[in-house]
Amino acid sequence: MFTIKSKDNRGRTGLLETKHGTIKTPTLMPVIHPKKQSIDIKKFGTEIAITNAYLVYKDDELKELAINKGIHNLINFDGPIMTDSGSYQLSVYGNINITNKEIIDFQELIKTDIGTSLDIPTAPYVTEKVAKNDLKITLKRAKEAIDYKNQNNIKMLLNSVVQGSTFPTLRSYCADELSKLGADLYPIGAVVPLMENYKYRDLVDVVMASISHLPDSAPRHLMGAGHPMIFALAVAMGCDLFDSAAYILYAEDDRFLTTRGTYKLENLYEMPCSCDVCNNYTPDDLRKMDKDERVKLIAEHNLKASFAEIRVIKQVIAEGNLMELVEKRCRSHPMLLDACRHLSNYSNDLEIYDPRYKKSAFFYTGSESLNRVEVIRHLKKLKSMNKKKDLIILPSYRKPYSNNIPDQLGDFYVCGVEKDLNLENSDLMIFDIPFGLIPINIDELYPLSQNESPKIKDSCSIEFTRDIIEEFFTYYEQTLINSKIVDELGLDLLKIHPQSGDVFIDIKDQEKIIAIGDYQFGEEAGNALFKGKIEIEKSKKTGKIRHVYSNKELIANMRASDGYFVLAKEGAKRLHRMMKYPKNRIVVNKDSEPFVREGKSVFSKFVIECDANIRANDEILIVNENDELLGFGKSLLNHKEVMSFNTGQAIKTRKGIIIE
Amino acid sequence: MFTIKSKDNRGRTGLLETKHGTIKTPTLMPVIHPKKQSIDIKKFGTEIAITNAYLVYKDDELKELAINKGIHNLINFDGPIMTDSGSYQLSVYGNINITNKEIIDFQELIKTDIGTSLDIPTAPYVTEKVAKNDLKITLKRAKEAIDYKNQNNIKMLLNSVVQGSTFPTLRSYCADELSKLGADLYPIGAVVPLMENYKYRDLVDVVMASISHLPDSAPRHLMGAGHPMIFALAVAMGCDLFDSAAYILYAEDDRFLTTRGTYKLENLYEMPCSCDVCNNYTPDDLRKMDKDERVKLIAEHNLKASFAEIRVIKQVIAEGNLMELVEKRCRSHPMLLDACRHLSNYSNDLEIYDPRYKKSAFFYTGSESLNRVEVIRHLKKLKSMNKKKDLIILPSYRKPYSNNIPDQLGDFYVCGVEKDLNLENSDLMIFDIPFGLIPINIDELYPLSQNESPKIKDSCSIEFTRDIIEEFFTYYEQTLINSKIVDELGLDLLKIHPQSGDVFIDIKDQEKIIAIGDYQFGEEAGNALFKGKIEIEKSKKTGKIRHVYSNKELIANMRASDGYFVLAKEGAKRLHRMMKYPKNRIVVNKDSEPFVREGKSVFSKFVIECDANIRANDEILIVNENDELLGFGKSLLNHKEVMSFNTGQAIKTRKGIIIE
Repeated sequence: MFTIKSKDNRGRTGLLETKHGTIKTPTLMPVIHPKKQSIDIKKFGTEIAITNAYLVYKDDELKELAINKGIHNLINFDGPIMTDSGSYQLSVYGNINITNKEIIDFQELIKTDIGTSLDIPTAPYVTEKVAKNDLKITLKRAKEAIDYKNQNNIKMLLNSVVQGSTFPTLRSYCADELSKLGADLYPIGAVVPLMENYKYRDLVDVVMASISHLPDSAPRHLMGAGHPMIFALAVAMGCDLFDSAAYILYAEDDRFLTTRGTYKLENLYEMPCSCDVCNNYTPDDLRKMDKDERVKLIAEHNLKASFAEIRVIKQVIAEGNLMELVEKRCRSHPMLLDACRHLSNYSNDLEIYDPRYKKSAFFYTGSESLNRVEVIRHLKKLKSMNKKKDLIILPSYRKPYSNNIPDQLGDFYVCGVEKDLNLENSDLMIFDIPFGLIPINIDELYPLSQNESPKIKDSCSIEFTRDIIEEFFTYYEQTLINSKIVDELGLDLLKIHPQSGDVFIDIKDQEKIIAIGDYQFGEEAGNALFKGKIEIEKSKKTGKIRHVYSNKELIANMRASDGYFVLAKEGAKRLHRMMKYPKNRIVVNKDSEPFVREGKSVFSKFVIECDANIRANDEILIVNENDELLGFGKSLLNHKEVMSFNTGQAIKTRKGIIIE
Repeated sequence: MFTIKSKDNRGRTGLLETKHGTIKTPTLMPVIHPKKQSIDIKKFGTEIAITNAYLVYKDDELKELAINKGIHNLINFDGPIMTDSGSYQLSVYGNINITNKEIIDFQELIKTDIGTSLDIPTAPYVTEKVAKNDLKITLKRAKEAIDYKNQNNIKMLLNSVVQGSTFPTLRSYCADELSKLGADLYPIGAVVPLMENYKYRDLVDVVMASISHLPDSAPRHLMGAGHPMIFALAVAMGCDLFDSAAYILYAEDDRFLTTRGTYKLENLYEMPCSCDVCNNYTPDDLRKMDKDERVKLIAEHNLKASFAEIRVIKQVIAEGNLMELVEKRCRSHPMLLDACRHLSNYSNDLEIYDPRYKKSAFFYTGSESLNRVEVIRHLKKLKSMNKKKDLIILPSYRKPYSNNIPDQLGDFYVCGVEKDLNLENSDLMIFDIPFGLIPINIDELYPLSQNESPKIKDSCSIEFTRDIIEEFFTYYEQTLINSKIVDELGLDLLKIHPQSGDVFIDIKDQEKIIAIGDYQFGEEAGNALFKGKIEIEKSKKTGKIRHVYSNKELIANMRASDGYFVLAKEGAKRLHRMMKYPKNRIVVNKDSEPFVREGKSVFSKFVIECDANIRANDEILIVNENDELLGFGKSLLNHKEVMSFNTGQAIKTRKGIIIE
């Protein structure tokens, strides 16, 4: 019903199937008022619309029409329709004249594609007591709705709305409970006041607390979010759907939506975007115009600007530079920048969701980039790496560093206990902003050489990398650090090592591939794959390592674009033999075993277990419950997603292993 | 011929008059090939086009047509046309078959609106010797062209191109020499290789070195700049015109221009903007399309995206947040961010050009914002301010700070020589990021309370403000600094002042307006205006100071939006009496004297002299050469611009002073 196509941080592009067609997420659902549809929203990229079932129900004429002809005919939209249940009206007007079951029945009757139960929207900043009480009712109604749906063979998809006010623990608890019920989609409700009042930091806490406890296999809808300014941030946190009446409400108020903020017509000297309206009219033209015509045009601009941003977001997810876009968009308002900075508190969670490598280079856009998951992930691996006795740190030359080390290296300052130089027992690393330290052997792994930063360094990045280096001093007996770095970072070191001139860099291929093996598959994987007698074949054109053999049998290929190994059969076997279950493994059930052995890809529903270290795009081993090696391939999802989904592919199998 | 409408940093919106109409700058001039005009560029916002006169000249058929019917008919464009002279062809192919005078004659003959002399484009990174030799010829031909124009009553406007390769001193020298010749427009040439190779930092040096030596009264054209990604940065440096064949060349290569960079069709999953093409077609549609049709559509997108960005830039200049846009756009590529950071080396120059106040709040977008001219300007005034003996620094509460100081202030740490608290002789300042320190009396002056930053502070801003505070410690005997700040900045202070509890804030109105007077008009201006017996009238609604009288005579009004004083007659007289010539003064000639006394606004051509401290939007005194006070009003330009322009308004006179 919902499948993921591409991923970046918690953002994903996906496909959501409904009775009235399949839609591509993320997307915006324009709100249609059941009584009046002044704009042909389908013209502007709308794939799915949202309207309010309770407003239809309350109005005798609309109710009858909807029952007889269906909601699609009523609002003149033949694509998928989601309906609200009246919770909003409940929150504004108090009691409403319908029960939970009645509104479910009604939504099914009018043939809505995605219906909603009657939750209690709880405003931000209420007391915990009020939030908890409301939550009890919301959960009760959610359960009632889902039970009712299952018992009565209701066809429509069902929303269960996450509430909990501004208490992250309540939001998480609510999400947990709703997950157990197994709804089809999960809106996050009662957030509009946060967005209207620029409380974006609180929005981050509410969304992350909710989404981190919701299943990955169902779409999440950020209710009432309709301003293109926040789409990118919301998608990066895992939101798939937006809805808004903003396009028309703002138009009625002469206000233009843009990713840079909101513009009132009275303050416009020039039209704000490249759409048809902005091209064909000037602000003066609109000011002189008759109100109805003007509202239509501004609404058209608002929809086009919103859908253009949705397209940009889909593009950057597919490319792998969603966070670059988020960091850019968050400059539109200091409170958004605040939220972007605040998001760094969730880096550990986001790191699990980010694919292992991406199509695009990592661009540093400012100090916020220091919190990117690629940096976090690298530093974790660095810290857990096997370490030699001493450390030598070289300055950054041109990338890839390993190819561009000059002959004359200059002086090295001593940190720690000064002793004789021992190159054999020294880890060799390159100082890098923003990645801190890059071991020379793994410097071509994505994104360690596939990244760009400004040459003029900001003090945040200098402080950040200085902290890393000072921490690493403590892991080694002696650290030699090149004088260029000592100057750049203003380190307080005084002694130059007398054997500075003897430092030379000799990258041994076998050491290199073992280091990459370790970094990619885990400690000891490098030895598991590449110990003993091996033959390395390099590209004649680039000199890069291409294939690694043992006794003419292919162990693995190194992929040029990102430096990672792609296993061959012998490599898979070696890894399987030496790495302890369930490391590097995805475990599939009996039913799928024969297909895997034939080399067919694996659907999520066949997966029983998955190593928690697995990230999307990782090379993995496919085994059965007895840990017999069935095949190997690329995981398309992380371990949480793999376990959550019952539809769609989990593994792109490269080769199956026939029983010999 | 060229007048400025609004300004922000060195950016300006303007009007350029030509024989075929007036155009609004900044703008993009799409390049039209004389032989083929496949796109109707006027449809997309083109006000002025550019084509190559040499290519017309070389081709017998085109030449004849152009001579007989004029260039406008030849390329089917009835708006203003600029023509290149063949310099580009010269740089690519070596010698060309035409002389400087011949190409000038030809351009006039075919009725071009803006023609170009035959300069020598000198590539970046050549030796200084080559650059100097080329420059000699370029200057010789520029002089020859201008002399020729003047002697032969040539009607077309004339470009003189600034060359000098990548030697800032040569660029400046060239600009100086060309300025003496008095051309109508000044293109900056031979920069395309810099832009094509992402050498944006070098581009900043070349542009700033040129523009800072060119007259403000003539437009500057960044030759070959056609990528919307750099428009904002280039405009902020003072460029008014762009030209490019990129829209069509990129289209022929299946490449899309966007402010976020360039996209190849093969890498597009989604269309990149909100224009008609992007709305009506998918990347797949275009990939399947016939090449000619596809090129037309991509070129249409490219033009629309480019002109949309031009409109955005005009909008933000009028609003006063050009640098927020620059800082945002520069995130599109790390080398652009580098250039943006590098621009801070020119802050002193940019500060002269930035208006005193703007319509929009100052938004902090990242550490680059610490280099904004508003910050530089404030810190300069702060340092030069009269100082009392001691300093007390309070933490930032809500803005405006003076309205929101709590009763309980907490502890204050001592820095300097500890002595008894002496509130009368203590300057009271608020610690602020990014403005460092804000004296309590002037905290409502733009942008000191009209600014927003994220709550989560980056270490760049903490380091920046810590440095300011540590410098200010040295100007006072004793500094008391609130404990909250000591914690936030990690200051190394140990002693809490025993009289911390006695610190209380009492803002005296007369002291306040004197401080504002000093900050606004210069040292001692406050006393000049407000010494002695004065009556202050406040707004009943907001409690803010509104009018200041002396013996019922109005001295000045305080403007609510930005806190600055607007002089009344008595204020002007007092200021005039006490501030020494030429401070706060713009000096006008005899011809305009009677008009000023009648309260009429002043045109630039009547200005003889101008205080170098005057910035656009400053309240100023209008005097004659004998320093007689003729009137007072608002300067629309800074002193350099006022002296450079011979057209357009310099001063919006508020009142004239009749001779009594």
